[in-house]
Amino acid sequence: MAIDLGDLERRAAMVSLAIGELLPVQRPEQLYRAGRHLLDAGGKRLRPSMLLMASEAVGGNPLDVVPAAVAIELVHNFTLIHDDIMDNADLRRGKPAVHVLWGTSGAILAGDTLYSKAFQILSGAKADPVRVLSSMGMLSQTCASICEGQWMDLDFEGRDEVFEAEYMEMIEKKTGVLYGASAWIGAMLSGGSQEEVAGLGEYGRLTGMGFQIHDDILDLTVPAEVLGKRRGGDLVEGKKTLIMIHAMGHGVRPGLFGRGKASMEEIEDAISLLDDSGSIEYARAKAIDLVDRGKEAIGVLKDSAVKALLLDLADYMIRRGY
Amino acid sequence: MAIDLGDLERRAAMVSLAIGELLPVQRPEQLYRAGRHLLDAGGKRLRPSMLLMASEAVGGNPLDVVPAAVAIELVHNFTLIHDDIMDNADLRRGKPAVHVLWGTSGAILAGDTLYSKAFQILSGAKADPVRVLSSMGMLSQTCASICEGQWMDLDFEGRDEVFEAEYMEMIEKKTGVLYGASAWIGAMLSGGSQEEVAGLGEYGRLTGMGFQIHDDILDLTVPAEVLGKRRGGDLVEGKKTLIMIHAMGHGVRPGLFGRGKASMEEIEDAISLLDDSGSIEYARAKAIDLVDRGKEAIGVLKDSAVKALLLDLADYMIRRGY
Repeated sequence: MAIDLGDLERRAAMVSLAIGELLPVQRPEQLYRAGRHLLDAGGKRLRPSMLLMASEAVGGNPLDVVPAAVAIELVHNFTLIHDDIMDNADLRRGKPAVHVLWGTSGAILAGDTLYSKAFQILSGAKADPVRVLSSMGMLSQTCASICEGQWMDLDFEGRDEVFEAEYMEMIEKKTGVLYGASAWIGAMLSGGSQEEVAGLGEYGRLTGMGFQIHDDILDLTVPAEVLGKRRGGDLVEGKKTLIMIHAMGHGVRPGLFGRGKASMEEIEDAISLLDDSGSIEYARAKAIDLVDRGKEAIGVLKDSAVKALLLDLADYMIRRGY
Repeated sequence: MAIDLGDLERRAAMVSLAIGELLPVQRPEQLYRAGRHLLDAGGKRLRPSMLLMASEAVGGNPLDVVPAAVAIELVHNFTLIHDDIMDNADLRRGKPAVHVLWGTSGAILAGDTLYSKAFQILSGAKADPVRVLSSMGMLSQTCASICEGQWMDLDFEGRDEVFEAEYMEMIEKKTGVLYGASAWIGAMLSGGSQEEVAGLGEYGRLTGMGFQIHDDILDLTVPAEVLGKRRGGDLVEGKKTLIMIHAMGHGVRPGLFGRGKASMEEIEDAISLLDDSGSIEYARAKAIDLVDRGKEAIGVLKDSAVKALLLDLADYMIRRGY
């Protein structure tokens, strides 16, 4: 079943409103403007929405965990800001990246500030202190994993060969764990049982990995106007995505791969090649499998409207058009 | 009374040992090597030592708070790694800066990793959960302040004039609050009363500000071999320290100020100028005043050997030779 986008939009709107309240632009003004730049540029707020749904799924009142949802979105945006510096990416969500507008130093500090505020906001969550503390432990452990994942991603660029298992570990760390932490923390703060918390954590981790593979596919298939960043950017940067790992395993390596730049036509040709080699289809099948396993992991939850919504969200993560 | 350096060294050694245990080099190995680089290069461990002493001063067992002390040192090193990127500083503790060895991307990630690990380690502290949670709130708030302070510091470089009050706010945020958090958290985790925790927090904040002013003085007066970084570096970079703010207020502005580089002789001449204008002496008097106020703030503590040690530490912070 397709997700009712209104269900996502309502939650996203709540998170956006709370960001304005919990992260006001204060002195030094430009630091906080830099921190708010990407947050205000939109984004689908899938991670915080997942947190809110996980809370509801274990019988919690999602309003109580809105600050935690904001904390997750701040961590996500912190990683985007720092990643854009490292990847030398100049466009994000259709706007100039933070380092383009405020310089490398400004972007490092804006990211660090969002990181700090995330933990500060989470520490003030209105829930049992032991559960808040567990959530902070989970979030900090998750952040360390994200750094490891990003390090692996950068390391892959300089290597000739990357194995599929390494790629899977990389996306688990870079993307899976933050989705995992979102669902885990939503359930933990709202009093979920050990099984519910663990099941939702697995659900987030696995669907998050599917989300990342789908993201790699979108990078090839979605026009820049919709994507908000260059199409085929991963290709010209030489990113060893699952698609490229499969292609290279089958002797296919487009000439523009890792060349830094290419014409629109060359990118179209490269995508045709990857289509013909079955590499895009291969990645799509992996994403579907991960999402199916993620859905199984919430078999522990009792049936409810929000459980159905979580199942729809899982599908949406690999069917969304951008 | 001069501090018994053995008292500091014993605590520093304990912290160094614990860093090796709590932050092992794991995969991806180079990420953790980059994170450990500055930590392993030494440092006086004044912040974690202050945390251990604060714990003892309220009747706690300092061994229980060693992980929290490590967390503080990790946060400190995280800020050094990122600051060195922003300041384009290539030497720290007598070794190449992290970004020199692992590149900007490596240094951003190494810093982010230390940051994450600091919160992860603190979240596992063996103390009353409510007190651990308060400590995490304090540390995250402190980290946001540090970012604000570093932003102000960078902003000052591009400005013609900086007022003394702005400088004081900057060093409070950039340096004072982390010393403040060290003493505060040591007392909080070890069951200190509200007055003890607040008094120790003030002690740390004020003596930390004195420490920073003294650091600015050392930058001018200590040979590079001892300092572990270029002498007069702040001058050629155009840093608006209290010394320079006083000097400019008295019409003194050495020619090399903000020029990017200078010969050893030019630096010597500039220092003579700042000495003649009374600017160095002015800064020294401010540092002494801050430390005196910091010592007063722990009047709430009952007399003990460790209280005497804290008073000695306060003096040491502005009398140390490097």
